[in-house]
Amino acid sequence: MAKGSSISGFPEWLPSERVVEQRVIDTLRRTFELNGFIGIETRAVEQGASLLKKGETSKEIYLLSRLQDVGNEADTPVADRLGLHFDLTVPLSRYVVEHSGQLAFPFKRWQIQKVWRGERPQEGRFREFVQADIDVVGNGDLPEHYEVDLPLVMVSALEQLREFGLPKATVHANNRKLSEGFYRGLGLTDIEGVLREIDKLDKIGAEEVVKLLVSECGASEDQARACLELADLTADNGADLTAKFNALCELHHVTENEEAYALAKQGLDTLANIIDKAARIRPGAVVADLKIARGLDYYTGSVYETFLEGAASLGSICSGGRYDNLASQGSKRYPGVGLSIGLSRLVSYMLHTAKATATRVSPAVVLVAVWNENDRAISDDIAARLRARGIAADVAPTAAKLGKQIKYADKLGIPYVWFPADTLETEAAPDGTEADQATHDEVKNIITGDQQPANADTWEPDSALAEQGVKLES
Amino acid sequence: MAKGSSISGFPEWLPSERVVEQRVIDTLRRTFELNGFIGIETRAVEQGASLLKKGETSKEIYLLSRLQDVGNEADTPVADRLGLHFDLTVPLSRYVVEHSGQLAFPFKRWQIQKVWRGERPQEGRFREFVQADIDVVGNGDLPEHYEVDLPLVMVSALEQLREFGLPKATVHANNRKLSEGFYRGLGLTDIEGVLREIDKLDKIGAEEVVKLLVSECGASEDQARACLELADLTADNGADLTAKFNALCELHHVTENEEAYALAKQGLDTLANIIDKAARIRPGAVVADLKIARGLDYYTGSVYETFLEGAASLGSICSGGRYDNLASQGSKRYPGVGLSIGLSRLVSYMLHTAKATATRVSPAVVLVAVWNENDRAISDDIAARLRARGIAADVAPTAAKLGKQIKYADKLGIPYVWFPADTLETEAAPDGTEADQATHDEVKNIITGDQQPANADTWEPDSALAEQGVKLES
Repeated sequence: MAKGSSISGFPEWLPSERVVEQRVIDTLRRTFELNGFIGIETRAVEQGASLLKKGETSKEIYLLSRLQDVGNEADTPVADRLGLHFDLTVPLSRYVVEHSGQLAFPFKRWQIQKVWRGERPQEGRFREFVQADIDVVGNGDLPEHYEVDLPLVMVSALEQLREFGLPKATVHANNRKLSEGFYRGLGLTDIEGVLREIDKLDKIGAEEVVKLLVSECGASEDQARACLELADLTADNGADLTAKFNALCELHHVTENEEAYALAKQGLDTLANIIDKAARIRPGAVVADLKIARGLDYYTGSVYETFLEGAASLGSICSGGRYDNLASQGSKRYPGVGLSIGLSRLVSYMLHTAKATATRVSPAVVLVAVWNENDRAISDDIAARLRARGIAADVAPTAAKLGKQIKYADKLGIPYVWFPADTLETEAAPDGTEADQATHDEVKNIITGDQQPANADTWEPDSALAEQGVKLES
Repeated sequence: MAKGSSISGFPEWLPSERVVEQRVIDTLRRTFELNGFIGIETRAVEQGASLLKKGETSKEIYLLSRLQDVGNEADTPVADRLGLHFDLTVPLSRYVVEHSGQLAFPFKRWQIQKVWRGERPQEGRFREFVQADIDVVGNGDLPEHYEVDLPLVMVSALEQLREFGLPKATVHANNRKLSEGFYRGLGLTDIEGVLREIDKLDKIGAEEVVKLLVSECGASEDQARACLELADLTADNGADLTAKFNALCELHHVTENEEAYALAKQGLDTLANIIDKAARIRPGAVVADLKIARGLDYYTGSVYETFLEGAASLGSICSGGRYDNLASQGSKRYPGVGLSIGLSRLVSYMLHTAKATATRVSPAVVLVAVWNENDRAISDDIAARLRARGIAADVAPTAAKLGKQIKYADKLGIPYVWFPADTLETEAAPDGTEADQATHDEVKNIITGDQQPANADTWEPDSALAEQGVKLES
């Protein structure tokens, strides 16, 4: 992150860091579009009422006030004020309802945008960051196969980011129906309560969760232990998952409650399908992990979290699930399934841990030198001819000594310096000790020192140097 | 704009409209990078004190408050609160000062981001919109040739947008030194006042401006008329400009005030240089227009406004100039020159007047049909093989009747539908009247009706259909 950034929680990248973020965004966009997702951008603000709707999960929201309303803010109820969106899911559900007549369903959309959360600054969290989301939203119903498809799109997208230093990512999947069926089969009724406590497992440990299940959710010690046994269950193929889950259900007599078991079975089948299909395409990319609960109460089927190998401290970097009731309009329902990448945190990891950086600061591959200001038009013309062929070119800021011009290129990481041919107007080269001006254009690779005659209408840079890219310094 | 958008001033595009905006952004970015500009993104917020700094030009600012501070907002002075940036120039000057040690100067940067202005909604203005800026910032000094270069980069960028329906753009340039020298030569002293009144010419007309120059700026009727004569002056080459301007200076005895005329001459020479150089590269793209004043008091040299042929009502769509004193740190000065495109207004024009729209809603070029849900894996595999070769592919949402699958493709504008080969598992085609499942894959162009055998490892779409693009409906 740029040093001295003066507002805590609002990350801002230096130019060479921004190149990494931009390439990450470009790569995700490309993957999403290859998979047929449609890009949208929603406005940054929503009505306070929309932002506050999800009571339990209410985020730290930033509200807006116009400068001329300062002092009178309290006159407007929060629900009627505008606030910055804290995720891209609330805007999506509003967008879908608002424009349903003009969208084709199922509506597959990608969206990469900034979101804002008014977290307390001392927590060291980002208060402004970029999210990258994909969702599929149905009109009325939504086929279950999307719960299989979407985590695989994300796996494929994250796979593309490994060249920028991202470790291997594994999606951990669970299913709300499986959990709910199992809990109901045990005789528990406060399903949301149980999910909320299970979600704390990694933070507070098993014994504390047992205590909370007993004290907060009306569970007996045995029921609480059974919930933990379920949370312990992992599998990387459907047969193994089914065998382990059914054994647990029989052990705890869940199978005897037909309705509850039928619900659990629905979730089990979806989950088994997800990991089997994923294993065929990318072995090890998606595993069943029955402790994944997700705090948000709007999920109704699959839930996903994604962890990076060797970067547990980052937590889940890509989460989501199926939500049947997020958006509705009158009697119309718009069920969806989606996942969201916390992109700024990923980029921060790439920059600071994986040491990703731009191969060069400037997008230009060549700097055209200027022998003297009267001949600047000659250099401008050379640059224009290069650009017309798609070769990014800069022109030296001043007709300084050649060494200074080369130093400018070097500071920006521009690998080639172009020397225009001698002309009648040109006097002696300003710094003859370094290069004599020739009767034809020459181009110098300032990394290797190689210098060759060149023509701006035909010259090509070394293909490895042509485009600004990302490298890992470690 | 998307119908029913419920917050006035916050435009939001439908998917096919967003494609246009995205292509415009991609095109500008490409042009800026070809010219060696470095992309940065700054945080959306700045300290209130920074936003309020420019007294005369204070914009309508949105201030932020955290949800839990609602009611106590008045406890914090506005200068200490956070606000959304209203342009990309204030953030740039802050960024340059903050990170000066890590930047190479002159720092050429491009930046395309949303900005926010708390305008009164009834004015029908955008309160959230995208700006696209280029600036060059020097450390201590900045060569004058950038005042020639930057408008030409913008002309080249706007030229690229003509394929999206943008009319021919012409940059109208003036120079503050020229105006100030002339006014001082007339004996006027309230230079900012005169510029402010001249800036109103198009809105209120010559007679009203004369009245204001007399009543507000201490001008005599003769002085006021001379100011109007200057504002009337236009030229498309340096010799013509110089001749006309000098004639005017002699007529009004400006040449007799040596100091004032020397200042005017500086500005005149820069301006003549700009239009002559522009004329060599793009005849007619840049003209001298001495009524261009720009209300902002921080410009110190060239000023630019850009108008579209046949779209006068849009006003200037790309404005800027040279500012020697915008950023400073102690005794260090960072002079700059830059231009800013009001991108959302341009996109709105392209959509609603030029009738630009996406060639298709979905980025996918092919929809792979699904004969029945048990065979979905076959269709998924075909799509994966296409994507591996960079061909964007979608898979039918359900194994509905073939007619319905084709209709889905049609609604998204996807030109090809892929029919997987018959397999042992496959029963009769669900809708045999429309297509019989063959023993090999086939692909149908649903626009022409042409259907051919195809292999997912080798097939290529018609090159005209390969990428989602923009077309003009008119």
